[in-house]
Amino acid sequence: MSAEHPLKFEILATDSSTGARRGRLHLAHGTVETPVFMPVGTQGTVKAISQEELVEMGYQIILGNTYHLYLRPGPELIAEAGGLHSFINWRQPILTDSGGFQVFSLEHIRKIGQDGVVFRSYVDGSYHEFTPEKVMQVQSALGADIVMAFDECAPYPCDRDYAREAMERTHRWAERSLAARNPGQAFFGIVQGSTYPDLRAESAQFISSLDTDGIAIGGVSVGEGKELMMKAVEWTVPYLPTEKPRYLMGVGTPEDILEAVARGIDMFDCVLPTRLGRSGSLYTSRGRVNIKNARFTRQFAPVDPDCDCWCCRNYTAAYLRHLYMCDEILAARLATYHNLYFYARLMERIREAITEQRLTDFTVEFLARYRSHLPEEVELSAENETRRENDNELRRKRSYAGTRKAQSQG
Amino acid sequence: MSAEHPLKFEILATDSSTGARRGRLHLAHGTVETPVFMPVGTQGTVKAISQEELVEMGYQIILGNTYHLYLRPGPELIAEAGGLHSFINWRQPILTDSGGFQVFSLEHIRKIGQDGVVFRSYVDGSYHEFTPEKVMQVQSALGADIVMAFDECAPYPCDRDYAREAMERTHRWAERSLAARNPGQAFFGIVQGSTYPDLRAESAQFISSLDTDGIAIGGVSVGEGKELMMKAVEWTVPYLPTEKPRYLMGVGTPEDILEAVARGIDMFDCVLPTRLGRSGSLYTSRGRVNIKNARFTRQFAPVDPDCDCWCCRNYTAAYLRHLYMCDEILAARLATYHNLYFYARLMERIREAITEQRLTDFTVEFLARYRSHLPEEVELSAENETRRENDNELRRKRSYAGTRKAQSQG
Repeated sequence: MSAEHPLKFEILATDSSTGARRGRLHLAHGTVETPVFMPVGTQGTVKAISQEELVEMGYQIILGNTYHLYLRPGPELIAEAGGLHSFINWRQPILTDSGGFQVFSLEHIRKIGQDGVVFRSYVDGSYHEFTPEKVMQVQSALGADIVMAFDECAPYPCDRDYAREAMERTHRWAERSLAARNPGQAFFGIVQGSTYPDLRAESAQFISSLDTDGIAIGGVSVGEGKELMMKAVEWTVPYLPTEKPRYLMGVGTPEDILEAVARGIDMFDCVLPTRLGRSGSLYTSRGRVNIKNARFTRQFAPVDPDCDCWCCRNYTAAYLRHLYMCDEILAARLATYHNLYFYARLMERIREAITEQRLTDFTVEFLARYRSHLPEEVELSAENETRRENDNELRRKRSYAGTRKAQSQG
Repeated sequence: MSAEHPLKFEILATDSSTGARRGRLHLAHGTVETPVFMPVGTQGTVKAISQEELVEMGYQIILGNTYHLYLRPGPELIAEAGGLHSFINWRQPILTDSGGFQVFSLEHIRKIGQDGVVFRSYVDGSYHEFTPEKVMQVQSALGADIVMAFDECAPYPCDRDYAREAMERTHRWAERSLAARNPGQAFFGIVQGSTYPDLRAESAQFISSLDTDGIAIGGVSVGEGKELMMKAVEWTVPYLPTEKPRYLMGVGTPEDILEAVARGIDMFDCVLPTRLGRSGSLYTSRGRVNIKNARFTRQFAPVDPDCDCWCCRNYTAAYLRHLYMCDEILAARLATYHNLYFYARLMERIREAITEQRLTDFTVEFLARYRSHLPEEVELSAENETRRENDNELRRKRSYAGTRKAQSQG
């Protein structure tokens, strides 16, 4: 990739009945087959998993969180290490988000202005400001293959006036982000517009008019539910250029991914497989299961007989359950590996199905099996669970910042 | 191994200047080169490490804690799974302890009688009794290659009268354990006698008179310090038969192991490398270091330049420190792997040195380097640290049992 073309996107096949695309991203650190799921490496590590294991599972790109890496260990240190790839020893592509989602989620400790956002560190209570220019500078220091524009992720529900205000700010910040980007990194703009069809259309058109390498749909997976999430995709995609990769941020469950791929999405990221793994929830070909359930006590067979991952080839559901009940680190390792492997295989099969023009059939078959075991409600609850865990995490962080505040005032 | 000879011990070489022995244990699930260090797999997992990684590091035998496995998941379930080897998918030898150490450490929740010990589960507060017969039955269900006699590990300090009482009880229990053993498993007796030379000699002679497959020195590493620990070895070893393997329980630091090997010890186990790894303390060729120390912030090189383990080949000290500061699971994984690898290589080099009749030279060279970086006091503090952490763990467990008690009475 030359500095002027840090991303090249090839579309290899389009599924005739759905519009789903099978593609390939060419990036500074390698190629990525799409549709792709990107594991989240929040603080420079995909929780409980090693970089070698990610390679072993076939992952070609991971995500890093600018917000977290900015606070710890800081962009200067990562730049000194030779960038995020060197620092964490991951030699394939990386995408960094802009920190917008985190900054706006921590709503009690911020001040939004036209220039940027002032927030307090949940680590030590210190004040920081993110502006589009600052965020691009941080992402340049991190050195990811793909960087994201700084945007405002509006909450759900959100009244129409605020949704427009946040969208317009996002547009101005997208232009400033683009101007401040490191031209050696691929740059994605982010469409906002909350749950308003006309705002989504307006935002899609505006972001599409910019000289970006790809376009993301943001402001989804914020509690609006599956139906509105897919609506946001449907309101946006028609206005996006076909030749650029499309990234649906923070999504999702296997079912969400299948639906979004059919609507033309190429890229996904989500903490579900890692976070649910750590809490004992495992994806199987017959639905998601809770390993702590008593029915696994004597299951001296893999948790998913259809899976050939490291966990399922070597360890039984009964052993995994025992490890969970004892709060052992190996439990988190095995379950996270299993879940990420499940997602990697799902994406592989989706790509094959698109090439072979049978995505709809594949989806029907996959879901018939996936839903045979557990009702859809259970899968929906996964989303709520994640939301709740996110909230708890943020509340803890806020409370910490609050404690620090009290201490510094005391 | 036939049922009548579940253990065969070959002595391959003896170091002429020290009396250290290089040997080989032949057990039901394979052979073990000695002197050997056995990682502790408390609850059926060596904390933070997978069974595949233990094999990769060259470990041939691991330890399982009867006390913990008895409480969770229980011997019946493990027997149903086909024994501990099958349950945890470890196909090489296993040694299980007798639970004596744990039962006697939890001193506030026990009642010692001539028949056995009544204790309360730290998991749910329920009452249980361990007798020699019960412990042998549990160890038979677990199916380890080597099982240990049920003993009383006297505390330190311990008055002479109680030390004698505990020793005599240990002797009676050793006979009962031997009578109740599963003859398909190798059986080790345990020498006690606290810090009294004559009691140690008496106990060594008594235990040596029994028809055991090996002999362990117990009641050490209980807070008595390095000097008294080595004294206990010196008071005991002269009375032990040369042809049986000798196991120093719960020991120790690299320095302890070197000293004990020179005194004729063949087997060791200790939680130090795993527990210290999880707390950020790493063994290096130049001493033990705390990865959280600010001096590692910008060390973009391995924590130990002389180490070729998975951690040191792939990750820098700066990255490891970052992972620790963020409390990431990968930190515990990398550090534990590194420490266990350090112990595995140390034992390998000890075995080579014995074969080549240069154990003293090796020890001098190793310690000159190992102590070049940090004073011995720091290494000594490792022991105290472990002790403290053990105490904290037990206190937590006791406090939990107390809470349960209060709840059940409330």
